[in-house]
Amino acid sequence: MKSNVAINTHISGRFNQELENLRNAALTMGGVVEQQLSDALIAFKDDNASLAEQILLNDAQVNAMEVQIDEECTRIIARRHPTASDLRLVLTIVKATADIERIGDEVGRIAKMILNRNLPGSENIKKSMILTGNKVMNMLRQTLNALARLDVEAAFSIHNLDKEVDHHYKILLKEAIDEMQTQRELLPEWLEMLWSMRALERIGDRCKNVCEYIIYLVKGTDVRHISRERIAEALKEEKL
Amino acid sequence: MKSNVAINTHISGRFNQELENLRNAALTMGGVVEQQLSDALIAFKDDNASLAEQILLNDAQVNAMEVQIDEECTRIIARRHPTASDLRLVLTIVKATADIERIGDEVGRIAKMILNRNLPGSENIKKSMILTGNKVMNMLRQTLNALARLDVEAAFSIHNLDKEVDHHYKILLKEAIDEMQTQRELLPEWLEMLWSMRALERIGDRCKNVCEYIIYLVKGTDVRHISRERIAEALKEEKL
Repeated sequence: MKSNVAINTHISGRFNQELENLRNAALTMGGVVEQQLSDALIAFKDDNASLAEQILLNDAQVNAMEVQIDEECTRIIARRHPTASDLRLVLTIVKATADIERIGDEVGRIAKMILNRNLPGSENIKKSMILTGNKVMNMLRQTLNALARLDVEAAFSIHNLDKEVDHHYKILLKEAIDEMQTQRELLPEWLEMLWSMRALERIGDRCKNVCEYIIYLVKGTDVRHISRERIAEALKEEKL
Repeated sequence: MKSNVAINTHISGRFNQELENLRNAALTMGGVVEQQLSDALIAFKDDNASLAEQILLNDAQVNAMEVQIDEECTRIIARRHPTASDLRLVLTIVKATADIERIGDEVGRIAKMILNRNLPGSENIKKSMILTGNKVMNMLRQTLNALARLDVEAAFSIHNLDKEVDHHYKILLKEAIDEMQTQRELLPEWLEMLWSMRALERIGDRCKNVCEYIIYLVKGTDVRHISRERIAEALKEEKL
């Protein structure tokens, strides 16, 4: 009996280690994308083409990480037959890394914009874009923290950060439209700017997706299509 | 022995039926989204606000389908311990339905544009937008066909359809910019149009994602970040 227990503990311990490694791999991938976004904002601020190029080169690394994590998830499901919260963790990682990879794609769009054209827009727009970008950075950081600690409260609080991003994004868009109207000969260049602004907003959306997976993982309830008010209420009443 | 075999066949038969049901559920969901896109193009063409409203109302159905399919995937993994191609099928469905759901979101953006504003743009732009939309519809249809028949060749041929969409999207964008330059007082309205054009292009991207999952499912090779030339070569040499 004793040896059986020992084997079980050993197997279970190894399994736990595998799950832990999986989560760490997802966080490492998230960290790379976070660095990419930070670099993109610096490259935009300083009009630094070589930094923007570097971001695009690093994208292959992020892609490779996603494929590797996916393979590891498949391997763990096939060999370990996880159930309940273990299975939810693995499926959360599958989905979260898909979103993180696409956050990397959105950052790539911003990097391409920096490389492709002489950017239009006043210093004011630049500042406003960086401000919005920093708010999005904050969202991404909080999302990765919530994933690291499997923290439902932190995951839920992403909605407040998203409201902030929305607020700044709307101001940014309005300022951009005002300037575009006086520079219609630069419309194609302005569109590049607009796609990048939109990319920032989309990164925020992706962060919200990941936070919803975290709530699902911890609480076992799918909150993807439930309003934030109902989620807050349920969290308060500990119904989730 | 005989009864054991019978039981095994029975269990395996039920399992196969579950997998079949799962795929059918994903295809049904895809069919709803395909209808949504078709309706959106008609609503845009005819400026039909009530049809656009209906599209937004139906979105809840698509969301509910995704949650239900996800739950069924989790249940199957937990209870049936699928391995190899069965497991890949389940994980493909998890990922494909996430993309299909977001195709629904993109269609929703187009429906909102139809509702929100007096749309700018000439009849020419409208025609060009519908032409691009029809090409995207074709991509979505082929994607769902490839998923229905697990047809790798069909999944791979999506790249050619995507090139067509790209071609028409670029023309559309150029025409839009030309008109915008003469209507700068309508820039906010034009932006709504541009986001919808972009939404069409994104639907094409999502179709490509699903087709890559199908290739992965059938061939067991992850082709998400491999160039189409290398995939074609490998398919030819039957290396995949």
